[in-house]
Order: sequence, then structure tokens, then C-alpha cells
Amino acid sequence: MEKKISDSVINRLPRYYRYLTELENNGIERISSKDLSERMNVTASQIRQDLNCFGGFGQQGYGYNVEYLKSNISKILGLDQGYSAILVGVGNMGKTFAINTKFESRGFKLIGIFDSDPQKYGLEVGKHKVMPYNTIKTFIDENNPKMAILTVPKNAIEAVAEELISYGIKAFLNFSYTELTAIEGIAVENVHLSDSLMRLSYKIVQSDDSDNIGK
Amino acid sequence: MEKKISDSVINRLPRYYRYLTELENNGIERISSKDLSERMNVTASQIRQDLNCFGGFGQQGYGYNVEYLKSNISKILGLDQGYSAILVGVGNMGKTFAINTKFESRGFKLIGIFDSDPQKYGLEVGKHKVMPYNTIKTFIDENNPKMAILTVPKNAIEAVAEELISYGIKAFLNFSYTELTAIEGIAVENVHLSDSLMRLSYKIVQSDDSDNIGK
Repeated sequence: MEKKISDSVINRLPRYYRYLTELENNGIERISSKDLSERMNVTASQIRQDLNCFGGFGQQGYGYNVEYLKSNISKILGLDQGYSAILVGVGNMGKTFAINTKFESRGFKLIGIFDSDPQKYGLEVGKHKVMPYNTIKTFIDENNPKMAILTVPKNAIEAVAEELISYGIKAFLNFSYTELTAIEGIAVENVHLSDSLMRLSYKIVQSDDSDNIGK
Repeated sequence: MEKKISDSVINRLPRYYRYLTELENNGIERISSKDLSERMNVTASQIRQDLNCFGGFGQQGYGYNVEYLKSNISKILGLDQGYSAILVGVGNMGKTFAINTKFESRGFKLIGIFDSDPQKYGLEVGKHKVMPYNTIKTFIDENNPKMAILTVPKNAIEAVAEELISYGIKAFLNFSYTELTAIEGIAVENVHLSDSLMRLSYKIVQSDDSDNIGK
């Protein structure tokens, strides 16, 4: 795993993981790259290329063993590590995360949720209780979470990230609608919900264009 | 725009759009592909390649005119169309969308939010009031929205999508943690929040690996 894997391959890995989980849940033990490609709506040669980046996993004439492939992708993605996470900012987006149990089935443990609004202290969200943000250092010292999900307002993001880095947090999932500046040794994934709206808009333009061609 | 543009290019377009908006807001009128590439953390040749898919927009020795490039990307993405949208399912995720005004600045008009829970009828969320789901057909007939943002539970998604298609909705942004089956003539963008967690996990593995190499 020494060579640099392209972003597009990495972006597809979670999808592979989701599809393989679905196959496994449906009791399917092996799948050809052709069948996998039809389900995922990418070409079979693309799938072979993607998985070859990590050393293959398939066998000519047999296809892929679902459990084996899934467990390997899980390792590549680090899902077998059971990383623990804290969440800062219990607004609507924060609640979405705190309530969703899907994330746990993906191997993440959400171990604490925090807000700086005293009115929210003690509020139950899913199986979590909101803790005061000013107790977060002690919590991190004692529980050593690896990552923080930041669902705080845009103007708070840089200060919160800086503080949490000083307490030892190494990775951020950032939902603040602004990009966290790249920091040496810190992993950041910026999520922009409006990007998905823009991609949908692009698809509408495309399908309108093909409608017009048909007319 | 006849040739097929790759998904990775399309995935990057919203990012270009966001960066160019930021540049414009900061009063910057032109930018070299080198500067743009540093800000966006992709190679300059990648940027030239991406934008060449749509016919260029740059001039040797001058770089890109920010306003001109942004307005072209806006057209490619269909953001100049001012598509209107409705939202179904006013839970935490639905509220996130209904409150956020950022989406409007991206050219989308959210014109109505709906839920099937009578306890939510009339509830004010941002500048919207929750309407009963059983009035949605009349609303669509009268207002003719192009897209629907679906923030409904997983088990409701297929039925809701099918119903809305029969009322004339042509595009879905799907947040239900399951993939909507591809439907001829319907644009779908499935958003999986757990994918971003998995990508972050991958980045943690990578940065841990480089830590170990350093030791």
C-alpha cells in the first residue's frame, strides 16, 4: 500500500464497502466483476482497475469472494480499527449524527457529544447526553478519541479545531460549510452538502439536454 | 458539451465553483492555474485538463478571469437556472436543509417543506412552515418544482419517490442512507454521510502509516 492511490479510487471505496455489506446481508457469497459493475453502475474494467490498486482480491473465472473482499476494503479504509469520535455542536446536523446508528455499524464509536450552549447541557440525543464544551479537555485526556465531528457554525470552526488539536485530536470531519485549512499531520474531510445539490443540478441539465435531443 | 464528462471532473466542479465564489468575494479578478491549484490542492495540469473538458476559459500568460470562469461553471452546473425544490421529511437532516440559506446563494429555491406527522404541521423551520404531506400533489401542480430533497426514513424512500415522480418531480437528492434505484429520465444524487466518515478513516490510516515510517 506504498503507492499513491488516486482520490477517485478512494472516493469509490466506501461505495464498494456499502454494496458488499448489502450483498453479505443478502447471503451472497461471491460475485463476478460484471455483476458488481452492474449493481454499482461502473464498468467491470473500472472495478478491476480499482481493486488492483490494492493488490487484486479477485480470481479469474470465480469473481470476488464477498466476505474476503469486504474485509480487505474494511482494512484499507481502517474500519477494523474501531476509531472513536467525539462530536462538537449539537444543532440539527449534530443531532443527525448523534442519533444515527448506521455509523456504528461502519466501525466508528461516537463516545461523547458537546455543545457550548448551557441550555443544551444534559439534553438526551439518541443514547448520548450533551456535555459542556468546557469539559472537553478532561474528556479527551481520559478517553483518547481519535477524531472529532465538527458541526459548529462557520465562524467557530478554526478556533475549535485549533483547540482540539492542542488536546490531541488528529482527525476532523468538518460540516461547517467552510474548508479547514490543511494542517500538517492532521486528517481533514470537509463535507459540503451544497456540492450534492450542485451535482444534482448538473444531472438535471444533462437529462434536459437529452430530452431536447429526443424532440 | 456533447462528449461524456467523467464523474471525477463533475465531482470537482462544485469545488471550483466554491473557490471562485470565495475569490470573487475577496475582490480577486484573475488567477493563474498555478495559484488556483495551490488553493485547491490539485495539480495545475489537472485544472487545465478539467476546464478543457468544457472548452478552456483560460488564456496563456493571463490565467483565468474569476468572474468569467465562475459564470461558465455556474452554467455548466445549471446553477443559473434557479431550480426550485421541495423537501420531504422534516427531521434533523430536513431542518438542516430548511434553515440553511447557503443553498439559496447556490441558485436553488426551496419553496416548500412537507412531513406526514400531524404534530409537525405548521411548525416554523427557518422561513418555512411545515405543510401536510397529503397536500403535496396540489402544491406540485401549482408551483411546479423541479427537484425534491428526500430526508425521509429509509423504509419510506421508494414509495415517496414513486409518488412524487407520478406528480412530475424529475430529480431527487436522497439522504435516506439507501440508494434510490436508477429510473429512466429521473436524476438522482444519493448522499451517504457515512462515506465521508470512511474517507476520513482512510486518511487517518494513511497519516498513521507515515508517522510509523518516520519513527
